[in-house]
Amino acid sequence: MTDTTPVITLDDVRAAADRLKGVAHRTPVLRSRTLDALAGGEVFLKCENFQRVGAFKFRGAYNAASRLSAEQLARGIAAYSSGNHAQAVALAARELGTTAVIVMPEDAPRSKREATEGYGAEIVTYDRYSGDRVAVAEALAAERGLTLVPPYEHPHIIAGQGTAALELIEETGRLDTLVVPVGGGGLIAGSATAVKGLHAGTRIVGVEPEAGDDTRRSLAAGHRVSIPVPRTIADGQALHTPGELTFSVNRRLVDDIVLVGDDEIRAAMRFAFERLKIVLEPSGATSLAAVLAGRTGPASGRTGLILSGGNIDADRFARVCAGGE
Amino acid sequence: MTDTTPVITLDDVRAAADRLKGVAHRTPVLRSRTLDALAGGEVFLKCENFQRVGAFKFRGAYNAASRLSAEQLARGIAAYSSGNHAQAVALAARELGTTAVIVMPEDAPRSKREATEGYGAEIVTYDRYSGDRVAVAEALAAERGLTLVPPYEHPHIIAGQGTAALELIEETGRLDTLVVPVGGGGLIAGSATAVKGLHAGTRIVGVEPEAGDDTRRSLAAGHRVSIPVPRTIADGQALHTPGELTFSVNRRLVDDIVLVGDDEIRAAMRFAFERLKIVLEPSGATSLAAVLAGRTGPASGRTGLILSGGNIDADRFARVCAGGE
Repeated sequence: MTDTTPVITLDDVRAAADRLKGVAHRTPVLRSRTLDALAGGEVFLKCENFQRVGAFKFRGAYNAASRLSAEQLARGIAAYSSGNHAQAVALAARELGTTAVIVMPEDAPRSKREATEGYGAEIVTYDRYSGDRVAVAEALAAERGLTLVPPYEHPHIIAGQGTAALELIEETGRLDTLVVPVGGGGLIAGSATAVKGLHAGTRIVGVEPEAGDDTRRSLAAGHRVSIPVPRTIADGQALHTPGELTFSVNRRLVDDIVLVGDDEIRAAMRFAFERLKIVLEPSGATSLAAVLAGRTGPASGRTGLILSGGNIDADRFARVCAGGE
Repeated sequence: MTDTTPVITLDDVRAAADRLKGVAHRTPVLRSRTLDALAGGEVFLKCENFQRVGAFKFRGAYNAASRLSAEQLARGIAAYSSGNHAQAVALAARELGTTAVIVMPEDAPRSKREATEGYGAEIVTYDRYSGDRVAVAEALAAERGLTLVPPYEHPHIIAGQGTAALELIEETGRLDTLVVPVGGGGLIAGSATAVKGLHAGTRIVGVEPEAGDDTRRSLAAGHRVSIPVPRTIADGQALHTPGELTFSVNRRLVDDIVLVGDDEIRAAMRFAFERLKIVLEPSGATSLAAVLAGRTGPASGRTGLILSGGNIDADRFARVCAGGE
């Protein structure tokens, strides 16, 4: 794959949208006059916290799994994740009439395990101090003939994630700026492909937590760099290096990466709760945090935000907002 | 007014909807497969927590204020409320280019005062142990030539509140059951008028907190009865007697009133937070609490719920959910 061959195109995102029709939610786009006034322009909030499993991850997981052959589906799928991708793969398997095995650390939060089991998946644990989750998952997949569904490093995952931005644009028309949280880079790669495919002039701004700025550093360096595993409340974005495939897309299509601190994320979670009346997990609030902190560039114009997820229980939400985490 | 002359008709609700177009939000109707499975039927959630000022109250306040004469509007409007109606009247005044004076107890929560002042209203306080807020407001209105906008006892208020249910039905089509929180009775009176006007067979079920069952008792008695001012976390429904006008509508159109306890309301707030990713204040969660507790009748079929408001700050939410209030 060279830089001149796109990993995916707008048509791939459109094909993913067709597959997701009636399976994924077409999530609402919320507006807030208070937010418009604070931002000094029109802001459109694509609420992926209302997506099935509570995060955009279901889009990519289902799109990828639905492209597998009947034979692959008959044998089952697998993933390694202690986050939203685990639930996404579990639900995608159930929707497609197959089974999922999810590799999670032994000390994963009980709520995450239960939610994943609730969708009918089998959980296999490993010791995260001594084990390598990728090796565990690959060995398991080989042994049982399962197909691994990766969290971001696959064209079908990237195309699936891009459907959130495609739906947003269908509803709002041309945007001046699209602001997207960056973890492994699948969501922003798919979003940028969809949006630039429709309107080449739309600025694509990624948001990373201050402590987890691996994509910003990599873009500045012109190649993927690694950072120590970051400490941040935005656990969905605590990666140490960008994906290879996603980085090859993002280096072409992302205009800027901005950073937000944990206190700015907390303030955005509280703003979402008290003013927008919606629940965002820390990673799901970073695009809003960037806009509220005035980091996303020209204040005027039309700005779209992807609010990527809302999986946080009421007790952790209270602790995080109080600064206790 | 006798029992045979309706206070308002479906056409009044339709006229209110025309006035509210472009001013009030057309709030989204959310679905949840988890909730459908728990309820054993299709459930449609009309999210008035996303309404301007965070509650359905803006619909009635704006509709009533917009019907005043140019002369009345030039002199200004007034209301007595320490709750969502205060903010609703303040914003309605601002939208209509006039001023509002809101009578509040001296010890009203600072957040409520600030929100109301934030919409440009003047606050006049009274001592709620020695003063009578209605008398204070009426004296003030007489002295300054202001027009009082009541919280529920007016046909234009009732018609405005009914637009939430009208929008819901426009989106869902015929419902078997509509579940509506009951405080002063304006929301359910307007909703019942709109929905029965379209589909006479739809059951209208009201929900009151266990400790505040004045409307249930009044319907059972066949006339308005008073109860001691109730202690409940559902502060928006802590009334001691139904409105006269609203009761005259509700005795004809409401099929049943069911009760929910504070712990059931807490569980519904938590369910809304963790599963639906939305914020509901206690009164805003009572219709959901009734459905989750299996109190709203036949489990199958199509049920609409009005989620009436989401005005609760993150700190009180944590206290309420923890049972500390």
